[in-house]
Amino acid sequence: MKHITVLGAGMVGRAMALDLASSYTVTAVDVSEKNLEQLPSSIQKRKGDLNDAAFLRKAIDEADIVLGAVPGFMGFEVCRKVISCGKNLVDISFFPENAFELDQLAREKNCIAIVDCGVAPGMGNILLGYHAERMQVENFLCLVGGLPFTRKKPHQYKAPFSPVDVLEEYTRPARYVVNGKVVTMPALSEVEEIHFDEVGTLEAFNSDGLRSLLYTMKIPNMKEKTLRWPGHARLMEELRSMGFFSETEIQVNRHSIRPIDVTAALFFPEWKYAAGEKEFTIMRILIDGIENGQQVQYRYNLFDVYDDATKTSSMERTTGYTATAAVNMVLSGLYNRTGISPPEFIGKEEQAFQYILQYLNKRGVKYTKQKFD
Amino acid sequence: MKHITVLGAGMVGRAMALDLASSYTVTAVDVSEKNLEQLPSSIQKRKGDLNDAAFLRKAIDEADIVLGAVPGFMGFEVCRKVISCGKNLVDISFFPENAFELDQLAREKNCIAIVDCGVAPGMGNILLGYHAERMQVENFLCLVGGLPFTRKKPHQYKAPFSPVDVLEEYTRPARYVVNGKVVTMPALSEVEEIHFDEVGTLEAFNSDGLRSLLYTMKIPNMKEKTLRWPGHARLMEELRSMGFFSETEIQVNRHSIRPIDVTAALFFPEWKYAAGEKEFTIMRILIDGIENGQQVQYRYNLFDVYDDATKTSSMERTTGYTATAAVNMVLSGLYNRTGISPPEFIGKEEQAFQYILQYLNKRGVKYTKQKFD
Repeated sequence: MKHITVLGAGMVGRAMALDLASSYTVTAVDVSEKNLEQLPSSIQKRKGDLNDAAFLRKAIDEADIVLGAVPGFMGFEVCRKVISCGKNLVDISFFPENAFELDQLAREKNCIAIVDCGVAPGMGNILLGYHAERMQVENFLCLVGGLPFTRKKPHQYKAPFSPVDVLEEYTRPARYVVNGKVVTMPALSEVEEIHFDEVGTLEAFNSDGLRSLLYTMKIPNMKEKTLRWPGHARLMEELRSMGFFSETEIQVNRHSIRPIDVTAALFFPEWKYAAGEKEFTIMRILIDGIENGQQVQYRYNLFDVYDDATKTSSMERTTGYTATAAVNMVLSGLYNRTGISPPEFIGKEEQAFQYILQYLNKRGVKYTKQKFD
Repeated sequence: MKHITVLGAGMVGRAMALDLASSYTVTAVDVSEKNLEQLPSSIQKRKGDLNDAAFLRKAIDEADIVLGAVPGFMGFEVCRKVISCGKNLVDISFFPENAFELDQLAREKNCIAIVDCGVAPGMGNILLGYHAERMQVENFLCLVGGLPFTRKKPHQYKAPFSPVDVLEEYTRPARYVVNGKVVTMPALSEVEEIHFDEVGTLEAFNSDGLRSLLYTMKIPNMKEKTLRWPGHARLMEELRSMGFFSETEIQVNRHSIRPIDVTAALFFPEWKYAAGEKEFTIMRILIDGIENGQQVQYRYNLFDVYDDATKTSSMERTTGYTATAAVNMVLSGLYNRTGISPPEFIGKEEQAFQYILQYLNKRGVKYTKQKFD
């Protein structure tokens, strides 16, 4: 039986380990005993610090493929070490560094290394990759967000991961493409309200979500916006301009402290989902341009909610199952491109593309597709 | 020549020392060399810590009257020590404790001790005290605020004193009187917009400004609301509910820290007035009830702005000159009541009342009075 090692047993890591354990031998690795304890006995557990190169090497030694789900700040280094060991890799740590810096190493090591393989980044890239190979895309727009069903002011938001990761998204300048040129705007800018039949009116604002697409795609107009309940962006923008997201240390009563760490500590209990709390992931993707000489628009919608039967959040389902789909795809020999693959490379290949969509569909994560011409 | 010792040479303390120095020998006492340096040579300076009882005793030894202008958190103890020395006192430290706890001591020591003697608290009490002695007051409403002319989002506010003092006003429950009963509401609640011809539309919200009036007055309805540029209360309420004003220590990177101290540190540079920056103090007081068998309403308005000629802010003028008026009034023998006097006691006495108003009027701080019947 093939062996998969999952690095990081947080919320999404756990869901992925469970999904894969039905078909493979799975080892989960985490520094937290508590995270490992939540896994069933069918999954092997290994406790340790993945910053320790010797430990990491040993932990992945028997793996046929490694699935990375560590926090973003350590993701790049973990990926580098896994690739150095010559292991194939699917990663959802969403690290801020440029993954292509590892491309040469991955090719030398003959590794298939798929990064950013969640829902966004992830499925947005796959869908655009598919169509960009088959038509002349002029405009790409991705609207995406994960939210609690219950709006509770002032936050109106929760997150199944560390608040710092979200607050950093709210500070990192957002890059998008207009008329072939990269435009940089502040995060949280250009707030607009957009209606979704499934949940009502949400707000959309600029966030730095295009990532690899900025380098891999020659498309004149590309934009990603994050979705939240209306009012969230305004409040976060105010907090940011007041200095609460600053990463520069200030002196407070003889302590040196980063305001963002204080803010994250205050937000942590507020943003934490209660067990079984209902949440959803919503995504709308618009791809338009010229196909076979005709102006067309493709429109994809995803609306995924907390699954009561399996107690699995939509975040685990939409992000985690995209990554486990990619793991299965690689193990089954359907995708063989060595080097760094952002998800748009998967989309280019018809068989790989269909495999991912079907895998997700079987788990109830359904992308509806419409074509307008 | 009479000798006045001013405790605290902050912004308002400095303005008061200057005002009094034209007629009296004035000594200014402060722990900060920098504060003392800003005073002209006509004022004697004494550097030292007013928490040190021996130092304080010595510093006020020659004073005929003491004027207290220390930060609120140390005001009560400074007043107790001054009264223990048998010195007459006018105080504007606006400490949170109940001043009447010092009443017996002040009477034993034969001291005239006037507290809360600024604009609000201060002049509001004096005006109400005057009319309450002369009619049956049914309703008292005081709207008051000090603001920069320039609205700059997100704060839309500046303060010539420590942000912590303001943030504590935003957390302390607001008490007002309805049908003779004390009602407690959260600070920043019941926000309403009110138009002022002088500056435009402001917002008014509950704050705990009645203080001594809750104990000294038998009036069925009394309320004080703070004025700000619209939007400020909403943002402050959001920050408060997010925990940014909390005085409970939290752990951040192994430091124990109070969120309010972090917030105050971030706000400090934003809330600081630049030299010469235009600001104003605005107050509207409504007093209505039965006078000589008739329903009447008295309405007082104050609109005071930064004075370019003397480089004196409206905060210094309206707060500081009320206190220096009281000092002059006591020194001239016009007010002799020993024990603790909140300002409403001054208002009761016709001569004292007129003296204060005239003193302020001479310095351009003008309360306009209207009577409706």
